[in-house]
Amino acid sequence: MNLILLHKEDFVDTDRVRLNGRRFTHIRDVLSAEQEQVLQVGMLGGKLGTGRISALAQDTVELTILLQHDPPPPLSATVIMALPRPKVFRRVLQGLTAMGVKRIILLNSWRVDKSYWHSPTLNPENLQEQMLLGLEQARDTRLPKVEIQQLFKPFVEDILPSIAKGTCALVAHPHAVQACPANLYEAVTLAIGPEGGFTPYEIEKLEEAGLSPVHLGPRPLRVETAVPALLGRLQGCS
Amino acid sequence: MNLILLHKEDFVDTDRVRLNGRRFTHIRDVLSAEQEQVLQVGMLGGKLGTGRISALAQDTVELTILLQHDPPPPLSATVIMALPRPKVFRRVLQGLTAMGVKRIILLNSWRVDKSYWHSPTLNPENLQEQMLLGLEQARDTRLPKVEIQQLFKPFVEDILPSIAKGTCALVAHPHAVQACPANLYEAVTLAIGPEGGFTPYEIEKLEEAGLSPVHLGPRPLRVETAVPALLGRLQGCS
Repeated sequence: MNLILLHKEDFVDTDRVRLNGRRFTHIRDVLSAEQEQVLQVGMLGGKLGTGRISALAQDTVELTILLQHDPPPPLSATVIMALPRPKVFRRVLQGLTAMGVKRIILLNSWRVDKSYWHSPTLNPENLQEQMLLGLEQARDTRLPKVEIQQLFKPFVEDILPSIAKGTCALVAHPHAVQACPANLYEAVTLAIGPEGGFTPYEIEKLEEAGLSPVHLGPRPLRVETAVPALLGRLQGCS
Repeated sequence: MNLILLHKEDFVDTDRVRLNGRRFTHIRDVLSAEQEQVLQVGMLGGKLGTGRISALAQDTVELTILLQHDPPPPLSATVIMALPRPKVFRRVLQGLTAMGVKRIILLNSWRVDKSYWHSPTLNPENLQEQMLLGLEQARDTRLPKVEIQQLFKPFVEDILPSIAKGTCALVAHPHAVQACPANLYEAVTLAIGPEGGFTPYEIEKLEEAGLSPVHLGPRPLRVETAVPALLGRLQGCS
């Protein structure tokens, strides 16, 4: 937790919050914080700033808040993923959030196990839990939007073309001829297949929607490795 | 498991192996393989090829082997990591292996919890288990070498300069001025700090050894996200 994220309901006054639970325990036990100590805080969906410990009780802490700075700019990337195994997806969602992705679309695909769509991982509160961990890690305040698209064909035919338009639109594919570009300053649309990859039919449909297949070398990678590898490569960074 | 990895002791004849245990179960249950089916195989440390199922019994399978192709070229990168939490390290080691890194140095650092060095994860057989999973994923046959350097200063002063020499030598550091380069075709030496980062003293020593601090944007990332993000960015891919 590199940032204490504040929610509206934490405020007991215009510039004062009272925290308990996980954030309190972190402040007390991990940061070993003391009265008057200044911590990095951020308002969920809003600005970053500082919180000075004004009261430290047995199970709550009060901070006096000053919010001054904008959170880091988002990564200009829309990520479209074939839904991974729930346990893997939780980690990947945290990582995507930490890297600054603000739009994540979960897509069905031939090789996605149907049971994954019924996992409690996809409940809004569980998605939010992972995304909050990602924001706390990356000192960011703005949650990504997660969309669920369980019908491959209508999504790819009717919705994807307008998402891809005007962006560098790519689908990661181990058998692609073209290599994945690097250090881009334009907006990116990136589709990532399931373990075992998209089927040839799916790749064809994604190409029709405007996505270019690209590879990252000859090695098939797990989703949790491929996602940060591709985004770390693509992101413009100077 | 995208590849059935063969060990010397599997061979019952010059071109025939008998497998049981985990690989047998995978062939039977995941691949639902049948007599005469041809599978992708690789000799640990050697070539890739095919294995045709010549006998399938209740708890063993026999394959007739033809080894013809070289494994994918290694990633020309030496990765020096502050030892992460054991559970995280297992995943990171698998990912590093899958990405093709062949030399991994585990380094002590001020912020590495001393207990991590006593974890059974560092036993050679446990390291090998994770690396084999990485090779099977990436269809590679050559194990990385993992070295343990528990003394920061002697390693960085006496050994690191000769590793860094003649390579693009970098240390990932969120507060660096310079951005991480991308798509390099030269050899890379990459140092990655612990959660919380290297201390200013450690960064100074790493710079003296020839490493340049580079960042990957303003967001502090977890080791398991930062490692593939940096390697995916750095690797030359055309």
